[in-house]
Amino acid sequence: MKTIRAHDIEAMDKLARVQFATSLPGVKPVCLVGTRNTGGIGNLAPFSSVVHLGSNPALLGMITRPDVVERHTLANIVESGCWTLNHLHPAIVGAAHQCSARYPSDVSEFDATGLTEHCEPDFTAPFVAESRFRLGLELAELIDIASNGTKLIVGRVTMVQVAEDGLDPDGSIHLVGLEAVASTALDTYFGITPLARLPYAKARV
Amino acid sequence: MKTIRAHDIEAMDKLARVQFATSLPGVKPVCLVGTRNTGGIGNLAPFSSVVHLGSNPALLGMITRPDVVERHTLANIVESGCWTLNHLHPAIVGAAHQCSARYPSDVSEFDATGLTEHCEPDFTAPFVAESRFRLGLELAELIDIASNGTKLIVGRVTMVQVAEDGLDPDGSIHLVGLEAVASTALDTYFGITPLARLPYAKARV
Repeated sequence: MKTIRAHDIEAMDKLARVQFATSLPGVKPVCLVGTRNTGGIGNLAPFSSVVHLGSNPALLGMITRPDVVERHTLANIVESGCWTLNHLHPAIVGAAHQCSARYPSDVSEFDATGLTEHCEPDFTAPFVAESRFRLGLELAELIDIASNGTKLIVGRVTMVQVAEDGLDPDGSIHLVGLEAVASTALDTYFGITPLARLPYAKARV
Repeated sequence: MKTIRAHDIEAMDKLARVQFATSLPGVKPVCLVGTRNTGGIGNLAPFSSVVHLGSNPALLGMITRPDVVERHTLANIVESGCWTLNHLHPAIVGAAHQCSARYPSDVSEFDATGLTEHCEPDFTAPFVAESRFRLGLELAELIDIASNGTKLIVGRVTMVQVAEDGLDPDGSIHLVGLEAVASTALDTYFGITPLARLPYAKARV
């Protein structure tokens, strides 16, 4: 095993350090966050920091930095109170990655990448029509993380749309069948293959 | 597409709702969190809520509920100020899943599952010897999430150990080569396959 300590990480050049540090969670989710600004322009940004917070009510969190491309996302969420999460499949990974580019706020990433807006009544934020598994959320809480100035955006799930064959009666989502995509770092994408589904674990002592 | 709204989620029976809600982030990380209690007993618990918070310094977060098996983990982290994250590969998925059982606090999940403690000097929390990619963290911040009583545990990465062929000079971790494992819900595990590594995206407007 190689051992890399905190001072080794600090001594890396910036690109290597970002590549390394953003790989440390291992396999990450990745989805496109859809928002709309007060001028009506849709925005899409890839996020790999989405976490489950609770099941009843269904709550999800995601991390944002105030000083990067996601700034449009955060501003739009605060203004409109809602956003969408659009899961990827291989055919839209290229367009999703392109949404990480720094477009000006008057340019919609939908127009720039060719992805299609899907709108729902009484919901401001745009969904990605091409996505096979997408969520609508309402802002519940915005929490400052003092350690480095990031924020945890907490959202209540108000709507889930999933391809007809993507949901089992037991509540499972068929991520393999939906060709769900995973990620690591900021540039690397994976497909998934089934490994195991295991029963509820009981102590054997 | 099927549409499931908040009231549909509330109306699900509890097991289906948990299965569904814990699938909403899509493909999730999964690793074993290693801690040690004041009596010296090692503890392991699977977590699928690890997120990258920052690269300089390298910070990671994870979500805990006060009222579930992870309660040992949270208490140990607060007492000792440190923990480990141990990434999985297929040969240890079964043992890792078994660590989600509710063992009493005087039983070490290492003893219960056959996983092996790896200790590092001046670091209280135990690593999993079988893991090919493992991290040591020090507690930086503990943040209450008012929406549902969960907490975000923020840690500074003090040490990373990775198999000799698992790290590239550009800072990338070879998750495919390490046979890294992903998860969804609380019971489902995936392998990963390479899909794409894409260049830094620039706006083309």
